[in-house]
Order: sequence, then structure tokens, then C-alpha cells
Amino acid sequence: MNQSIENEMRRILALADGERYHHLRHMMAYHLGWEGEGAGPQASGKRVRPLLVLLTASAAGGDWRAALPAAAAVELLHNFSLIHDDIEDNSATRRGRPTVWKLWGIPQAINTGDAMFTLANTAILRLELPPERTLQAARIFQRACLRLTQGQFLDISYEEARSLPLEAYWPMVGGKTAALLAACTELGALCAGAPPEAQEAYREFGEKLGLAFQALDDELGIWGDEALTGKSAASDLLEGKKSLPVLYGLAQGGEFARRWMAGPLTPEEIPALAAQLEAEGARDYTQETAARLTEEALAALERAAPRGEAAASLRALARRLLKRSA
Amino acid sequence: MNQSIENEMRRILALADGERYHHLRHMMAYHLGWEGEGAGPQASGKRVRPLLVLLTASAAGGDWRAALPAAAAVELLHNFSLIHDDIEDNSATRRGRPTVWKLWGIPQAINTGDAMFTLANTAILRLELPPERTLQAARIFQRACLRLTQGQFLDISYEEARSLPLEAYWPMVGGKTAALLAACTELGALCAGAPPEAQEAYREFGEKLGLAFQALDDELGIWGDEALTGKSAASDLLEGKKSLPVLYGLAQGGEFARRWMAGPLTPEEIPALAAQLEAEGARDYTQETAARLTEEALAALERAAPRGEAAASLRALARRLLKRSA
Repeated sequence: MNQSIENEMRRILALADGERYHHLRHMMAYHLGWEGEGAGPQASGKRVRPLLVLLTASAAGGDWRAALPAAAAVELLHNFSLIHDDIEDNSATRRGRPTVWKLWGIPQAINTGDAMFTLANTAILRLELPPERTLQAARIFQRACLRLTQGQFLDISYEEARSLPLEAYWPMVGGKTAALLAACTELGALCAGAPPEAQEAYREFGEKLGLAFQALDDELGIWGDEALTGKSAASDLLEGKKSLPVLYGLAQGGEFARRWMAGPLTPEEIPALAAQLEAEGARDYTQETAARLTEEALAALERAAPRGEAAASLRALARRLLKRSA
Repeated sequence: MNQSIENEMRRILALADGERYHHLRHMMAYHLGWEGEGAGPQASGKRVRPLLVLLTASAAGGDWRAALPAAAAVELLHNFSLIHDDIEDNSATRRGRPTVWKLWGIPQAINTGDAMFTLANTAILRLELPPERTLQAARIFQRACLRLTQGQFLDISYEEARSLPLEAYWPMVGGKTAALLAACTELGALCAGAPPEAQEAYREFGEKLGLAFQALDDELGIWGDEALTGKSAASDLLEGKKSLPVLYGLAQGGEFARRWMAGPLTPEEIPALAAQLEAEGARDYTQETAARLTEEALAALERAAPRGEAAASLRALARRLLKRSA
């Protein structure tokens, strides 16, 4: 499947190529990990989203090959959003390499993202389902795009606030993470021609999977093992990220909240403050939330009654994602 | 028609609204000239593109109301590209008001543009034609999006070069201006259910109209009447814009080219250099090129055999556009 995903994405990128446009294509290929210094699998990301599309299509009784355009579409959409996020967050590196804006400047990076967004929208229209169903796929895809920009809007807005209520968390991660995973599984089921109830169960599986994944990611961002996560533990605290444990801690109004509200933290304070936040119950709360969402995700998956080898692969993918060992 | 266009756009913007998203919607509504300081028709732009869709649909024998989603889609696409262009060009004002990035910062402006791009893609899928035809419309729309980003890629790339060959001009303006106008007329004809030859003639009309418009705009950017164009004449020379007359002048390798290649111009030099460029034939060349393209546009329109009142309105719109009196 992995090679087929890359091949389909290459076919779609070729649509943007042409005598004068090699460099535009190259900037996209660079971001996707195919070209330039440091190219290779480690620079490509894990392609979790397209795999989720194809495994769902197969588990729902369809031929995964028919879902390849949708798989390419979600991965291109994800990567377009990363190109723009990197500008918005002022991030100089991604997957160990300089970001597109860092190499070629903000104007070209904005436009390269726009070109990749266009290719994502082009990809979804390459589905060769009955026309009514291809249109439905395109509409599902557009809803995910809209939630993505809404989630990003909240994320940028939240940066200005020092504190936020706990419930502000879910619409933001719902848009930034869950919306696209929900689209992956819903599109996979739609491509397979699954009945509406199964489509809805697969959609819920993807949505809950995304929320559980984000909650776990937030836990690791404070208490994670650096060797496993690849980023320094507690770095989320230093960056002032409004992650789930932080918002929980703020809602407690205890020692953690008092220090957080007093202004930016220093690296030296982080270990003690992480311990304080844990003592106030934020780590347990986050783990329990993630566990509940994981159970809900797996229950939705079983309700969808996945079949064959792909069912086992889908469960394994979910487990791998929720353990961050992938 | 104008009110119907605004209403359809308002319905589409409402899709991005919601308890937490009023401000995201507001930033889009601000850019469209509906809200905020200085809101009003003068802040909205002329809505030439959606009118072109609707008049074409009507002239091709269809009900223009059925084409409203396509009209809204092209106008939203145009405005998305302006939001991003303003960041890329570092433009602080548009239509006499501060640009989105100037008011709300680059991160929100990039994302607001992405949200409007999403709504444009959502709009085109609201067409209620037979499914196969709606898909065709969406594919035409995606091709225009791709040419738009390719044209913008060239425009940004060209900024680094002091000189360019004359032929570098056409793919850039083809993408930046003509592609969208071509999509307007092609979509209008498609919505009306016009036969393929008529669709193609309408498409060519839009494409040539866009090229002619841009050539004329370039002439006005150097020799235009400030009172008519609203921007100071010769400002294109000062900004170093690689417009058609400049590329023609560079190709002559005369006095103009020597001065241009020597480095940035001062405001005091501009009048004499504009006169020099005119003496070297660049103004005549640009006017003749625009006249030829205008004739080709109008010939394509007549080949499409437009009908009824809309045919007259379409010709009037083309004339108005090509005289810049609109």
C-alpha cells in the first residue's frame, strides 16, 4: 500500500509540473521528503492518514486501490496545512530539515502551500466512483478542510490568552487533528460503498482516534520519555502550549495555576512545575481522558464490523498510534 | 444579479460561522467589504468575475440563478488569492483599507485566506446540476486554481530577476489573470448546458479578455491618467514591475534597457524614462497587443453565439473592462 500511496501522490504532483514550474513542484516534493538535502523516509512522515483511508476501504469490503485518490488527497491536505503551520508558528525545522519558508521565503512558502492545497482538492476529484458518490466524497473532504481552518483559527487565537477554560480545548483539537482522521475513515468507507451506518461508525472511529491521539500527545509533551518522543519532555510547558493537562491544571486554580498566570516559565522551573501539575491530578485526568476516548474509538470500530486482514491491520494501526511507538 | 451574488456569498460564509468562529467569519467579511471600518461597495471590488459567470450562463441559454454557486466560487477564489497576495507583496492597503494581515497579523491572514479558499471549493460543489456536470465544473475550477498558483509562483520568482525575456510574460499573466476569467466563462456555459464547442468559445473569450485586460492595465501602469486609474501613473516603473512594456523595452536593448539594468530608479527619473520607453515603441506595442487580444476575445464571443439581453450585457462588460472605465 505504501508504495501505491507515494505513486499516486507523484502522479498528482506531476499535474503541477511543466517547463517553467519545475521549482514549484520541487518545493512540494521537498516538503514531502522526496527531494533535496535529507530526503528519505525519515523526512516524509508516517503516512498514517492515507493508510487509514486504504485500510478502512479494505476493511469495509472494498478494493483499496479505488480509494487511492482519496488517500493521496488527505495526505496532501495534511502536508499543505503543515507548510502553512510552519510559517504561522515560525518553525524553522520539520522532521529534522529546514522548513519550506526557511529555505525559500514566506511568499513562495504560502504559495507552495496553496498549490498543494489545490492538488489535494484535485486529487479527491480523481476518484472514479459513481458521480454522485465522488461528489459526496468531495463534500466530506471540504467539511474536513473547513474544520481544519477553524481549528487553526482557534489555535492562533489562543496564543494571545494566558489562560483558557478547559472546554476551549476540544473544538481546537477537533479541528486540528480529529477532523482529518474522521474524514480518512469516512472516505475509506464511502469508497468501499459501505452502508450509511457503517460509514458513520467508521467516521466516529476516526474522530475519537484523533482526539485520543491528541490527548496522549499532550501527556507526552510534558511527561514523555525524550528518547521515545524525539522532543524534549516538558517542552510544551516551556512553550506555554495550552495543552489538555495545562488547561486542567488552570481549572484547578492551585499552585500550578498561580505560577502559570504569573508569566513565562524558565527552563529551570519546568521539572518542579511538571511534578506540581501531576500532583494536582492533571496527568491522571489526561490519561483517563485518553483511555476513555480510545475505548470509544475501538467500540466505534467494532460497531463498523471491519472484515478480513485489513480489520486486524486497522486495529494494529490504532494501537500503534495510541502508543506513539510508531 | 449583484444582490443575488452577495446573498449567495453570505450563505457560503455562514457555513464557516459558529459560536467560536465569529471572528474568523468577520475577517473574511471584512476583506469582502461587508464589515468593519470603511465597509461598503467601494471596499468590495467590482464583482466582475461572478457577473461574467452569470451573464455567460444567461447568454448561453441557461437560467443564471442555477450558476450562482459557481459565481460565488470564483469571487471567493479571487478574494482568497488577494488575501495571500497582500501578504506575499507586503501590501498594507487594498481598496483604501488596511489589508487583513496588517490588521490581524500574518498567521491569521494566511489561515483566513485558507478558510476562504476552502469556502470557494465548497461553493462550487453547491451547484445542483446533474452530478456528472457538477463534477466537471469542480474540475474546471481546480484547473483554474492550479494555474493561479503557477502564475503566482512565476510572479514571485520574477521579482528576483532584473531582466526577463518577453515570452516570460504570458504564462505569468495567463495564470494570474486569464485563468480565472476563462474559468468564469467556461463555467457559465457549462451551467447553461451549452454544447462543447460553445463552452470552448466562451472559455477562449474569457482567456483572451483576461490577457487583453492585463496588457491594458500594464499600459496604464506607466502612461495612465492618475485620475482615471486611481494609482499614480508610472508607479509600475518605480516598483520595478516586469510588465509587458518593460519586457518589450528590455528586449530592444536600447537606452531604456541600459538604465533599467543599472539598478533601481528614482522618482525623479520616471517621467523621462517613461517617455524614453514610449519612444522605443513599447507603448505602441502594448496597445497593439491589447487591441489584437481584444479582437480575438470578441471574435471568440461571437463564435459562441450569445443570445438575448445577456449577450448585450456581456459585450458591454467586456468593453467596460477593456476601457478601465468600470
